[in-house]
Amino acid sequence: MNTTNINTETKSFISNENFLNEWLGNRRLTRKVIVAFPEDKLFTHSIGGMRTFAQMVKEIIDLSGPGVRGIATNNWENTGGFTEHDVAPEYRSKAGLLQLFDEGTAEIQAYWPQISEERFTESVLAFGMYEGLVFSTILYFKDNEIHHRAQGTVYLRSLGVEPPAFYDRS
Amino acid sequence: MNTTNINTETKSFISNENFLNEWLGNRRLTRKVIVAFPEDKLFTHSIGGMRTFAQMVKEIIDLSGPGVRGIATNNWENTGGFTEHDVAPEYRSKAGLLQLFDEGTAEIQAYWPQISEERFTESVLAFGMYEGLVFSTILYFKDNEIHHRAQGTVYLRSLGVEPPAFYDRS
Repeated sequence: MNTTNINTETKSFISNENFLNEWLGNRRLTRKVIVAFPEDKLFTHSIGGMRTFAQMVKEIIDLSGPGVRGIATNNWENTGGFTEHDVAPEYRSKAGLLQLFDEGTAEIQAYWPQISEERFTESVLAFGMYEGLVFSTILYFKDNEIHHRAQGTVYLRSLGVEPPAFYDRS
Repeated sequence: MNTTNINTETKSFISNENFLNEWLGNRRLTRKVIVAFPEDKLFTHSIGGMRTFAQMVKEIIDLSGPGVRGIATNNWENTGGFTEHDVAPEYRSKAGLLQLFDEGTAEIQAYWPQISEERFTESVLAFGMYEGLVFSTILYFKDNEIHHRAQGTVYLRSLGVEPPAFYDRS
């Protein structure tokens, strides 16, 4: 058999287990940034007309847990309504946000093992709206979390609060 | 050929090629954020005592290209001096920063194919200072870029400049 022209050399950058651990480390840091916020500033502070950090955290919550569940199950019911929960009381207190955030982390951990290796390179219409390959969609969830968390750290600095260290994922 | 002891349970989350493309997409966005800055504000604007965006971009430049080169070659010479280049004139203009940033992107692309699949799970002492597994170290470079870029977008908003869209990686 002539295999010279067949590319069998797809190399893995990172395993699904190691990626999950990296993401969970990032989520521990995100949680610390939420905790570091003075309760009132979480819902009122803004720079340059941007959203409050509570609103950014809501986006992280709405994308991550439900996103992984949808990718694992192909069931996107009760997801994608990125504004419908604005009225839920859990989104109106720091304790409530932390509870929802922790539930999201648990959802990621519960559904992650159900995603097959083949699934990561399939196409998905996340939330019935956003088309992309699964690995890229999941990276988007994580990168978007890092992005908004970093914006939150500038809010904290502007309030005179030292943010948790970026490299501390404990 | 010895194929024993292969752990068939290790699932890949993302291939090295796809990861590189994701990172390069992120770098295109980072470049746009640099471009969006008014030249003077790049070197003077700050919120809450934080570094200027030029100083953050310098960190991204110092970590990413030289980091991938070090991982690929085990040669960490002339890297890790995160302050020594402060005096280099290239770091003192937007055009110079963009040039260094582009050189870093070219360095990543040139050295990436030399990193073997096995290397990604090896331990590395990056810059002779930071110990970690290679995949984790590379994710740190990328996540750190997203983190500081996001801080730059808050600077831009505070200056009344609309940042490039987070999802646009073109």
